Amino acid sequence: MDENNLNRWLNSRKARKAALTADALFEGIKNHSIKDLSQGITLLESTLESDQKIAKELISKCLPLSGKAIRIGITGVPGVGKSTFIESFGKLLHKEGKKVAVLAIDPSSEVSGGSILGDKTRMEEISMLPNIFIRPTPSGKSLGGVAQKTRESIYLCEAAGFDVILIETVGVGQSSTMVHSMVDFFLLLMLSGAGDELQGIKRGIMEMADTLVITKADGDNLEKAKKAANEYKNAMHLFPPSENNWIPKSIICSAYTNFNIDLVWNTIQQFINHNQENGWLEHNRQLQDNYWFEESVRETLIHHFLDNPSSKEYINDLKKQIEQKSISAIQAADILFNQLINKNGSN
Amino acid sequence: MDENNLNRWLNSRKARKAALTADALFEGIKNHSIKDLSQGITLLESTLESDQKIAKELISKCLPLSGKAIRIGITGVPGVGKSTFIESFGKLLHKEGKKVAVLAIDPSSEVSGGSILGDKTRMEEISMLPNIFIRPTPSGKSLGGVAQKTRESIYLCEAAGFDVILIETVGVGQSSTMVHSMVDFFLLLMLSGAGDELQGIKRGIMEMADTLVITKADGDNLEKAKKAANEYKNAMHLFPPSENNWIPKSIICSAYTNFNIDLVWNTIQQFINHNQENGWLEHNRQLQDNYWFEESVRETLIHHFLDNPSSKEYINDLKKQIEQKSISAIQAADILFNQLINKNGSN
Repeated sequence: MDENNLNRWLNSRKARKAALTADALFEGIKNHSIKDLSQGITLLESTLESDQKIAKELISKCLPLSGKAIRIGITGVPGVGKSTFIESFGKLLHKEGKKVAVLAIDPSSEVSGGSILGDKTRMEEISMLPNIFIRPTPSGKSLGGVAQKTRESIYLCEAAGFDVILIETVGVGQSSTMVHSMVDFFLLLMLSGAGDELQGIKRGIMEMADTLVITKADGDNLEKAKKAANEYKNAMHLFPPSENNWIPKSIICSAYTNFNIDLVWNTIQQFINHNQENGWLEHNRQLQDNYWFEESVRETLIHHFLDNPSSKEYINDLKKQIEQKSISAIQAADILFNQLINKNGSN
Repeated sequence: MDENNLNRWLNSRKARKAALTADALFEGIKNHSIKDLSQGITLLESTLESDQKIAKELISKCLPLSGKAIRIGITGVPGVGKSTFIESFGKLLHKEGKKVAVLAIDPSSEVSGGSILGDKTRMEEISMLPNIFIRPTPSGKSLGGVAQKTRESIYLCEAAGFDVILIETVGVGQSSTMVHSMVDFFLLLMLSGAGDELQGIKRGIMEMADTLVITKADGDNLEKAKKAANEYKNAMHLFPPSENNWIPKSIICSAYTNFNIDLVWNTIQQFINHNQENGWLEHNRQLQDNYWFEESVRETLIHHFLDNPSSKEYINDLKKQIEQKSISAIQAADILFNQLINKNGSN
């Protein structure tokens, strides 16, 4: 074979392999194979171009089968008991015959080197159950990138027949907002003693919650939890109403004694029914699609133009000039833009 | 004169005129001339390139003199009594010898054809006072653009010796968030009967407020207002604490009887002192500068690549494909990006 022929042969082989793999994975996913689902998500998270190609094909195949699950976001500061809650909640759903996927977004774990769900012993019991799928935070440099991968993983999980998708995130910083924009229902877990444990929670998150759950309502803590739940209930009545006319609930529960875990699930089902009837659920998912489309375009443009050493140096220099009050922030943006566009020769 | 010479002469004349004008305007502004301040802002808002050039020079000259005013954002739904409050509040500040500039951001007024402050009769009394400067919403197509112009107007007002800058906005949609990111203190005006009048307020705004003021606390309404203020006070204690450790206050007032208008001003001064001491004020302004720099770059890139008929058609087509579940939102963004970059020949 001469070189041309060899290349052609290699390419056609690659193409066949890719086609086969996406097809094979899709067949597996459709037939609820956890192994194929895991492999599919691994491809989706891969930075290799060849993997990305297969992943894209796979997503396109899964999309028509997606959308049937209830997508639930769960947030709360570290220490609020997210894992214990999910363990308890997952067992309940499993008992009701639901297939549950648990995904996570926690870019901060990248820094510490471990993923929020990497240590599966934190959800020891449910991770052993056959219809529960637990997947740690995807690796990725930016929060936007991590969130995009999680969002596409939802489609694969739904195509694999999962009924409930739980997306876990720490309630600090931007990640909660990202999760809020990919779920149907947003749950905020809180401790009973309002105050210090709220430190770090992004302002505005409380107003986004569809239900607030006070955790660890057991033993000596029960009365305190009841009081807190009542206070939050009153507070939430004062919030601006949401578009779907749902009044956020305030619930106490204990994952330790299994108290009220079923009430949380009932509340979520009530919310879903309410918003299926008024059409908001479908409408909201469309808005979310638009948001992610536009947000991804922004993210890609910014990344393309700004994430390189020469841009960064230029940006730092401009920031210094802003600080020294020699140019305004908006003028600096103008200068940077002109430099970027001219350098890229597209003007 | 041949054509070359004529052009050279015209250009040098233009340059001289521009230099003179920016210098002259700056001289005027520095000497507190309202006429020159107005003209400066008009240039800043102009879309003519020649005006923009002068405006940029003028901003650069004004920047070193900026930063000394207290920047206050005032938001609330239509009907809450923003104009009446500002009228009363402005008179108080005037009595205390303060120079007050009132700017506005209300892009929705573009639709209705009139500006929120265009009708100056709404602030009849203070608009006559010598040290009060009222400027309606700048015209502009996008909220981002309008907000940028308002933000740069702040520098000009500060260089002109204004002590307090009030930035008024309706509390619905994105404009409140924009105002929040350009002020030191964010005031949310509310009516006493929580409920319907909150309709349309963007969720999360309440958690952003540094102080909440219940308006129209007079006559039959007084008791209701007191009760509401108390409820809000309790609610705000449950909010995540802000970085500056300020606990938002809840105040009742009446612009009609002038009740508690001074308390609002005292609270703002208390807030400013508190945050000058702990260094947050300066820190926050730096964060805001960074935000506006990055936001403006984003805005400009998006505008450059997406705001043209052919892009729009392409985008609509992609959105349809997302809706039909043939591609994911993130894939669509990818396709659009590649198309944009290739078309612009910058890859």
